[in-house]
Amino acid sequence: MNLNNFHLFDEQKKKCLSAVDLSRKGSVDAHIIHLVQFINDHSDFFSTSSCSGRIILVDNSDNDEISIKKKGCQWIFTSHDLVESKEVISCLKNVDGNTVFKFEPFVLHAQCRNLTDAQTLLRCALASGFRNSGISIGNKGKFITAVRSTHSLEAPLTCDGRLMVSEEYIEYLVKLANLKMKENFQRIERLFTNIKESLTGENVDHRKKKHKEKEHVKRKASFEKNQIQEYEKETEVEVSVEEDLSVCNLFQSDFVT
Amino acid sequence: MNLNNFHLFDEQKKKCLSAVDLSRKGSVDAHIIHLVQFINDHSDFFSTSSCSGRIILVDNSDNDEISIKKKGCQWIFTSHDLVESKEVISCLKNVDGNTVFKFEPFVLHAQCRNLTDAQTLLRCALASGFRNSGISIGNKGKFITAVRSTHSLEAPLTCDGRLMVSEEYIEYLVKLANLKMKENFQRIERLFTNIKESLTGENVDHRKKKHKEKEHVKRKASFEKNQIQEYEKETEVEVSVEEDLSVCNLFQSDFVT
Repeated sequence: MNLNNFHLFDEQKKKCLSAVDLSRKGSVDAHIIHLVQFINDHSDFFSTSSCSGRIILVDNSDNDEISIKKKGCQWIFTSHDLVESKEVISCLKNVDGNTVFKFEPFVLHAQCRNLTDAQTLLRCALASGFRNSGISIGNKGKFITAVRSTHSLEAPLTCDGRLMVSEEYIEYLVKLANLKMKENFQRIERLFTNIKESLTGENVDHRKKKHKEKEHVKRKASFEKNQIQEYEKETEVEVSVEEDLSVCNLFQSDFVT
Repeated sequence: MNLNNFHLFDEQKKKCLSAVDLSRKGSVDAHIIHLVQFINDHSDFFSTSSCSGRIILVDNSDNDEISIKKKGCQWIFTSHDLVESKEVISCLKNVDGNTVFKFEPFVLHAQCRNLTDAQTLLRCALASGFRNSGISIGNKGKFITAVRSTHSLEAPLTCDGRLMVSEEYIEYLVKLANLKMKENFQRIERLFTNIKESLTGENVDHRKKKHKEKEHVKRKASFEKNQIQEYEKETEVEVSVEEDLSVCNLFQSDFVT
């Protein structure tokens, strides 16, 4: 069963990458093709969803309780690059609902072969400034590392089709969003560098691990036993987590150092 | 060493909870005292930082690249309850910098005794609507579950002290923030219910686990071995992760079902 789990990952990866892209846009964003490709080319990872970051206008009118639930929101404008305020302003001319201007940063979900691999990716993400990243462990022990940023910008612009702000305000919003987008691109490149260094550096260990696994098969010992040993070794390496004094309650944990 | 790790958690918990609260506010927020207390009363968890959610005005003027970096931002107004727009408007009269209005949702970091416990808390968080939650594994194998929401609202109001929006717009912003705050409170209560049910339901298993650990000590087997067995059992339970079609690239993974 443990060995089956090992092969299951390869099957899941094959199935996932050969399937139809289910997102609205339907393709990997241009700014992260190199990163996603690098992840998918590695035998122990594959990307299940991603967005390079975007500046958007959405209409939240159809939602219960204004703008709370994402469900059913309509996209009026989307850009994965820097934008000009006139593009945004021209899109607002024909709206008749509750339009919100948003900057949404880069996000990536990658399935990892085991917890050690998920932890490696998480370390890269945190080191690159993606402080809201974390690991989820799903159905049947699937390990997903989610790379998430703390960046955000979300300002309502129209209510029932009526523009509530000046063009000057929209220009200011666009300026802020573009600054966040530039910082977002820098973080993506930092992440790419960190992942490359981390996975290349681990190639030697990786081969050793594969060898160990074969030994385990021979001795009919479990693959997970090896995994937890690798994992114990791995967690000796320090993860740097930035201290956030802006929370309301913060006790000194040795984790936060 | 493995047993040391087991006792280390108890020492860390004792040290953390008896230490000085390092946050600016310096205490657990009123709306989550019951939740944090419940977590801290359980032998396998303790909260290292938290915020019940807040509506704030911050001055980002001192930052490089407007509003990107949190470092050094000044708080002009903070509320952990619903607010009235006149409170916000009156605070804006004396500002001379770049003020931003924000709603920041509930956040909680809890250190967990082992990966199984971290996973239990993560399941509760996801089931309660905190979709950006995840596990971090820190220095020397410390397991932290971060409970995070996708809610956000962040709109600039002043630039170099000059108000860029109307009072009507601020009233609309406050209305949206209050709606998000109400939804935030509902999620917190859902989380409290889910955690109570989950940890109470696990009491029987918990005692069994303790017994198993003692058996392992007797046989000088490792504690982590037991942990991974528990964990394997645990991961058979399905974790429901909501499908997010708004990402730019989404492949069908069996994880997302």
